[in-house]
Amino acid sequence: MNIRTIDWKDNRIRLIEQRKLPQELKYVNIGNLRSLWRAIKTLQVRGAPALGAAVALGIYLGVKGGDEDNPKAFSRKLDEAAKYLAASRPTARNLFYGIERVCAKAKANRHLPVARIKRIILSEALKVMEEDRVACRKIGINGSRLIKDGDTILTICNAGALATIDYGTALGVIYRAKTEGKKIKVFASETRPLLQGSRLTAWELHKKGIEVSVISDNTAGFLMREGKINLVITGADRIAANGDSANKIGTFNLALLAKYHKIPFYIAAPLTTFDLAVRSGEDIPIEMRSPEEVTKILLKKEVAPKGAKALNPAFDVTPAKFITAIITDKGILRPDYRRSIKKIFSQ
Amino acid sequence: MNIRTIDWKDNRIRLIEQRKLPQELKYVNIGNLRSLWRAIKTLQVRGAPALGAAVALGIYLGVKGGDEDNPKAFSRKLDEAAKYLAASRPTARNLFYGIERVCAKAKANRHLPVARIKRIILSEALKVMEEDRVACRKIGINGSRLIKDGDTILTICNAGALATIDYGTALGVIYRAKTEGKKIKVFASETRPLLQGSRLTAWELHKKGIEVSVISDNTAGFLMREGKINLVITGADRIAANGDSANKIGTFNLALLAKYHKIPFYIAAPLTTFDLAVRSGEDIPIEMRSPEEVTKILLKKEVAPKGAKALNPAFDVTPAKFITAIITDKGILRPDYRRSIKKIFSQ
Repeated sequence: MNIRTIDWKDNRIRLIEQRKLPQELKYVNIGNLRSLWRAIKTLQVRGAPALGAAVALGIYLGVKGGDEDNPKAFSRKLDEAAKYLAASRPTARNLFYGIERVCAKAKANRHLPVARIKRIILSEALKVMEEDRVACRKIGINGSRLIKDGDTILTICNAGALATIDYGTALGVIYRAKTEGKKIKVFASETRPLLQGSRLTAWELHKKGIEVSVISDNTAGFLMREGKINLVITGADRIAANGDSANKIGTFNLALLAKYHKIPFYIAAPLTTFDLAVRSGEDIPIEMRSPEEVTKILLKKEVAPKGAKALNPAFDVTPAKFITAIITDKGILRPDYRRSIKKIFSQ
Repeated sequence: MNIRTIDWKDNRIRLIEQRKLPQELKYVNIGNLRSLWRAIKTLQVRGAPALGAAVALGIYLGVKGGDEDNPKAFSRKLDEAAKYLAASRPTARNLFYGIERVCAKAKANRHLPVARIKRIILSEALKVMEEDRVACRKIGINGSRLIKDGDTILTICNAGALATIDYGTALGVIYRAKTEGKKIKVFASETRPLLQGSRLTAWELHKKGIEVSVISDNTAGFLMREGKINLVITGADRIAANGDSANKIGTFNLALLAKYHKIPFYIAAPLTTFDLAVRSGEDIPIEMRSPEEVTKILLKKEVAPKGAKALNPAFDVTPAKFITAIITDKGILRPDYRRSIKKIFSQ
């Protein structure tokens, strides 16, 4: 079964409405900037690579209408769209990458007529989307070398087709391993508060015919101690120049548990997730989300006493020293990451 | 506000129906063995010390009716009740302790008339209940010495009034510290799958006027890295002769995180939670509960795809080497636990 998370159809962005999963596979069509902003904020669309493509297309949505005879007004509109989308969510590097890519392309062509620049923006956004499809498949090929037939893999959150265009990073590695005939079993950490592990990862792995069991996030240590996990693999939202990696809250816990149990801990991410301007994880901005995501299950069922306080950071940072390898579209990076990251970006 | 989790009223066990919290404070009255078994199995009542008192009273419920002229039939009935309740849940030591206490007392008095033995059983069960009330307060006094004014404490699951008769073990320490005028802030790890942290711990701390914030279980590492946690304190369901401690799934993760961040990790439990017959944590039986507790939130809202598998161990074991101290009613135990536990039991 093919899962197409983001597509460009009839001059609109078509998204899988991820809040409806796993009960319902529903699509939403986004035709303007404000709807996209809300879709990002409320996690109708999420996952760093998916966000990158969505905002790239979003910039086009922001500038496609209106006056074509006024280059200055167009340029202002472009800047506004970029600024607006950049304020949707702070952590995923790809979101900024997607905006920067199309804006830089537009600026490089600012001498052209506005109508032409618009077409160039759309074309660049579609390229961002296509490149992610290719990158994920390369991540899959590279990462699959680390997977042995019969492995049981633990993952958290969703770094699959639903976090990218149609394939996945961490789950892309698993899909590729399966294609190569390896029998894989996956434990999906449910990933509170928003349960992307049980709602999304279990859904797509199940669809793709991969054996998956859901666990509460609390169960990771238990399974490792029992010797049930061969390796951990997760995605990333932003990777600093030293290899420190921001990913869904709870990832750091898994990395520490894996280290203690001598289990390999891998990050899978395209180069577009790296942020060389950020020296270490301490400088990665961490999104704080609504306490209600914790006190009410999926913003509905109240599970804490009325008026209870809650703290809800959406990401944490895994220090590079806990990461066995970072699987990218350009190859597998190993420590020392400061060096290996620098090298791969200078090739 | 006084919270009385278990009481003996009108020849029945009166329990707070914990599945209704935090929305509703409701009591249920239990008048027979089968109802008690179901109340235990479905976690209407839970928490190791509370279970100990509940089953002690339960044995009386099991033998109180029927023929009083047949000591043999009575003895058979007693054994059956003990066996039946012992099969309700496997991990908490106190459950077996409660059963053993009243059965041993009955056996020591088997020469007496059946009616008399019954009264002795009830009296012994009430004693088990009263002793827990005293033990918890002693744990509070002993443990409060480890708490400094202004401390921020992380706990998991519920080791409070709702896990005991009316005071708590881990939370008893916090209550005592408050009584002594120390200002405490608590982070309650929500404790998936059944959310005892948000539903029960946040509820009772809030009622008692202690500042509490709920976090997803994934957030513990984040907070420790940020330097926001001064100490971790949890209850225990069974403590082996070497100090290895079984407690709610996820406790081991917290202990490892605390060790890495050089944050003290304390267990608070009465001596009745220790099982000297169990040499180490490996021999503590771990209850596996229904996968549906993971795939459906509070057994209602489905959050995993239909037919998804799940694994749901209810407890994990924290190795003694991660435990800074064990706070008991008879004092604070420090490593080497094999020695300190042996010593305290031989006093």
